[in-house]
Amino acid sequence: MSEKFITDLKRTHSCGELTLADEGKTVVLMGWAQRRRDHGGLIFVDLRDREGLTQVVFNPEVSGGAHSEAHQIRSEFCLAIKGLVRPRPEGMLNDKLKTGGIEVYVDQFEILNPSKTPPFILEEWVDVSEAVRLRHRFLDLRRPEMFRNLKMRHLSAQAVRAYLNEKGFLEVETPVLTKSTPEGARDFLVPSRLNPQAFYALPQSPQLFKQLLMVAGIERYYQIVRCFRDEDLRADRQPEFTQVDIEMSFVAEKDVMELTEGLVAEIVKTAVGKTMKRPVPRLTYADAMERFGLDAPDMRFGLEINDLTEIMKEVDFKVFRQVAESGGKVKAINGKAMAKLSRKDLDDLTSFVADFGAKGLAWVKVKPGGEWQSPIAKFFSDGEKAKIAETLDAAEGDVLFFGADSAEVACEYMGRLRLELARRFELADPNELCFCWVTDFPLVEYNPEEKRFTAMHHPFTAPQAEDVELLESDPAKVKARAYDIVLNGSEVGGGSIRINTPAMQSKVFNALGIGEEEAQEKFSFLMDALTYGAPPHGGVALGFDRLVAILAGAESIREVIAFPKTQKGGCPLTQAPSKVDMTQLLELGLRLDSVK
Amino acid sequence: MSEKFITDLKRTHSCGELTLADEGKTVVLMGWAQRRRDHGGLIFVDLRDREGLTQVVFNPEVSGGAHSEAHQIRSEFCLAIKGLVRPRPEGMLNDKLKTGGIEVYVDQFEILNPSKTPPFILEEWVDVSEAVRLRHRFLDLRRPEMFRNLKMRHLSAQAVRAYLNEKGFLEVETPVLTKSTPEGARDFLVPSRLNPQAFYALPQSPQLFKQLLMVAGIERYYQIVRCFRDEDLRADRQPEFTQVDIEMSFVAEKDVMELTEGLVAEIVKTAVGKTMKRPVPRLTYADAMERFGLDAPDMRFGLEINDLTEIMKEVDFKVFRQVAESGGKVKAINGKAMAKLSRKDLDDLTSFVADFGAKGLAWVKVKPGGEWQSPIAKFFSDGEKAKIAETLDAAEGDVLFFGADSAEVACEYMGRLRLELARRFELADPNELCFCWVTDFPLVEYNPEEKRFTAMHHPFTAPQAEDVELLESDPAKVKARAYDIVLNGSEVGGGSIRINTPAMQSKVFNALGIGEEEAQEKFSFLMDALTYGAPPHGGVALGFDRLVAILAGAESIREVIAFPKTQKGGCPLTQAPSKVDMTQLLELGLRLDSVK
Repeated sequence: MSEKFITDLKRTHSCGELTLADEGKTVVLMGWAQRRRDHGGLIFVDLRDREGLTQVVFNPEVSGGAHSEAHQIRSEFCLAIKGLVRPRPEGMLNDKLKTGGIEVYVDQFEILNPSKTPPFILEEWVDVSEAVRLRHRFLDLRRPEMFRNLKMRHLSAQAVRAYLNEKGFLEVETPVLTKSTPEGARDFLVPSRLNPQAFYALPQSPQLFKQLLMVAGIERYYQIVRCFRDEDLRADRQPEFTQVDIEMSFVAEKDVMELTEGLVAEIVKTAVGKTMKRPVPRLTYADAMERFGLDAPDMRFGLEINDLTEIMKEVDFKVFRQVAESGGKVKAINGKAMAKLSRKDLDDLTSFVADFGAKGLAWVKVKPGGEWQSPIAKFFSDGEKAKIAETLDAAEGDVLFFGADSAEVACEYMGRLRLELARRFELADPNELCFCWVTDFPLVEYNPEEKRFTAMHHPFTAPQAEDVELLESDPAKVKARAYDIVLNGSEVGGGSIRINTPAMQSKVFNALGIGEEEAQEKFSFLMDALTYGAPPHGGVALGFDRLVAILAGAESIREVIAFPKTQKGGCPLTQAPSKVDMTQLLELGLRLDSVK
Repeated sequence: MSEKFITDLKRTHSCGELTLADEGKTVVLMGWAQRRRDHGGLIFVDLRDREGLTQVVFNPEVSGGAHSEAHQIRSEFCLAIKGLVRPRPEGMLNDKLKTGGIEVYVDQFEILNPSKTPPFILEEWVDVSEAVRLRHRFLDLRRPEMFRNLKMRHLSAQAVRAYLNEKGFLEVETPVLTKSTPEGARDFLVPSRLNPQAFYALPQSPQLFKQLLMVAGIERYYQIVRCFRDEDLRADRQPEFTQVDIEMSFVAEKDVMELTEGLVAEIVKTAVGKTMKRPVPRLTYADAMERFGLDAPDMRFGLEINDLTEIMKEVDFKVFRQVAESGGKVKAINGKAMAKLSRKDLDDLTSFVADFGAKGLAWVKVKPGGEWQSPIAKFFSDGEKAKIAETLDAAEGDVLFFGADSAEVACEYMGRLRLELARRFELADPNELCFCWVTDFPLVEYNPEEKRFTAMHHPFTAPQAEDVELLESDPAKVKARAYDIVLNGSEVGGGSIRINTPAMQSKVFNALGIGEEEAQEKFSFLMDALTYGAPPHGGVALGFDRLVAILAGAESIREVIAFPKTQKGGCPLTQAPSKVDMTQLLELGLRLDSVK
């Protein structure tokens, strides 16, 4: 082993490229010993680098001294070898490997660095806990699937840049140490030593900076940029994440949406070699909620939600009729050919929807002749049953599900039920990429905790022109010039046309209960900027981790992040976050609260 | 003014492209009113967008209603105009403008957004304080020179990516919320809410992560990445800055240096259209100190430092002889043809070098016949004078400067003196780009405050093989496998071959007085990673802000950063850093110290 990399060997090929066409060449390979096998006096080593595997052979007759030293080789030793490319003997060919037709007969080799026995086998789809993988991420990333993920991510990022550069966009870097603007999620704070008692915040997105760049006349901006949210970590979120951030001047919704579609199509083509169907279908927020119960519908399958409210106003069954008559909604899903759902399954589904606020879940199994098997069958006349069956296109073998509640609650849990049924019956093709746009979002939503309206996207989103007069009288009815792009039921991006005049910005702040003083304190620089001929502008941000994860077929965004954090925001590899010296805190003018 | 961007006008051209070839076309332009002039019943507006200026004309006969409304237009109003491209009248042509041959006769226009009167004129080289510019950065960036800087930065970044992508490098994102490793500068800390009393640190560089990526077999990594240092801000530093970060496996110094030269040549070509001379000259650290007094020499001019120590051992002049005999150095610079330096100038230079530790500065003006005019002339015999003059190649009109001190101190202030003389006599061609490599740095330097050796680059730099045995006995003599690239006297990049075995890493930690326990606590994950077949690897990092600033001819890196901070780390635009709500601190388990 050398402390200095002074081997005269100079790498000539990767471990993923030699074929029979290279027969007779003397080559130098460098990489890691995937495995060693001793067989018939020969030593076989599968040498691995990021491009692939090559079988190298130590033969006492050919390799001489190298052969006897090769006995030292263990898994994950880092090696340099020099040798001759030869065809593998008959019957030893490996069709699955690009290099499977050849092997390299070693005549010189060097152990560049030995290795302890790794804590898990470095092969594809290895079955080991994520904690162990993250603790040894430097080994985990040696696995081919992880390298593929990182490479796909890299290529996707470069595709983004190539596409946007060609269209005249400038990548401009915005600050990471910036101002705390507590609207939206919680900020990460960074104490400033040079400005005692003052704090920077890490950006939740470069939203205001990209708008300022439009005011500055940059016209077309983008950035692949790290963003930060100090959230209680829900499934598959990271405290730091990456977004493709875009802003354009002199545009309306369709300009941004067309650009985004073109961009996403490039990413899809680059990442998985598929052609994205365009134009991407669009549906309004109201439609999405009505038909799918959620604002990020998975449209790879039907199983749409039906509204039976009108019908239920006429029935005798009080539970439904009262909801229907008192402004609530009765929703139904026809679980086509789901007859195999057992009574236990149906109980499970009932408790599943209860987690989303359902007080119960009514179901009907449709039997031969259209007969209903259901706890609620007795409450419906034959005529009513027929009408419902007709509306739901029900047939023998179907299972009908009913939810009755306020519109909001019924939509939510029927939407979740729809996804759960699709999961159980594998209705979604994992290889399909189904995009849609959701548009015409409400500008604001009521926040019962804060007892005020908050922005559904952010407070800089423009209202639709025809709704402006409702801003004071009925803000909940105002639609926003906002749009989300959804892939297979996950929001992978969203954006809006922004407010570009101080008058409109004040109106919207008002509707959000942000007074003039608060607006001045937090956003004076934005208000100021809007008074200097701010152009009409809008943009979009794509969740890059999520998008790449879906394209990679990964179960979690952690699979496409080199060094991700756990649910609790920790890094098992470096042990961040960690205690710091008291002197560091002293310099910052901070003290730790006594632990509660 | 519209709240909604619903003008039917669709931009057809930028303001920087129309020429006589477009005569007769009807065009739509959008941009900002640079200025308005009313002349002979016509209204002229210079319409500006990021691509340039176009003169648009409101003529009552052609423009109708538009003409009368055009009186509202003021500087920086955001406009959309539609009109006919016509040749300018004779005598009204403007050769300096690409669009100077034409004007656009408006028949329709819309004020997209009015503007208050800007606080300064938005033209090139405007004379206004930086504080005002930063406070209104959204206007400052409208100036063509600032747009050019951001565009040059953008194009340089894309050139970096194109070059490295083509060579098989993968851009991999590393964490921003990471572990505090107090070696080097001070970390910015980020309190963790989910892990009370624990802190993340913002990375000073992704050094350890890129090494882990090499252990992970990525082989070729890069990232254009934000880094953070909480330093007392010296001239032209920023608390957050951007570096081009590169790491490679299976390489030695020359591989990294060749790659870096090719990369920098691409940046230079892209940014300023020049061809960089290659190979870039190399000199050792010892040479650089000897000849230029500094480790980042500006080699656009000579004015080298001479060593007269041997000669001075023989002279009668005690001051020099004692220094020479007691292990110090006597250094001299021949200020060629600097006779015009007055007595006051020489006094100024004396106090200039005093700031760098000089106890005095001896000088000699060489007069006709080689006669010395100098306070110290009388201490030298004619023979000694002749020998010194010969060594320094002194001639009539030259001014000779002498410094006598410890090697370190004499080098430092004679190096500074050299730069100061070059500045006063404008010896450096501002249009020349003079690169050099400095190699063979010491591995460690003695830190008198901490009374221990600290790493000159960082503790992961490999020592040169032949010096390894000195690590214990005489660490100051150990040379590192490190290299810096210097442009016009500024270090614009540096790197090294890294340690790749735990044994060597322990040895170096030992030499740095980092005990096993401390190493384990701070760097256990690195030590762990090195035990699993870590490949030989090395890399480089370029200071992207600095490099682009020099290429842009900017006086400060702030000129090539969209939203820079002041010396005190503040942002005059957003007022970051700022006070935060007490509840935010409570959530983090922190309290403010009472202000001192």
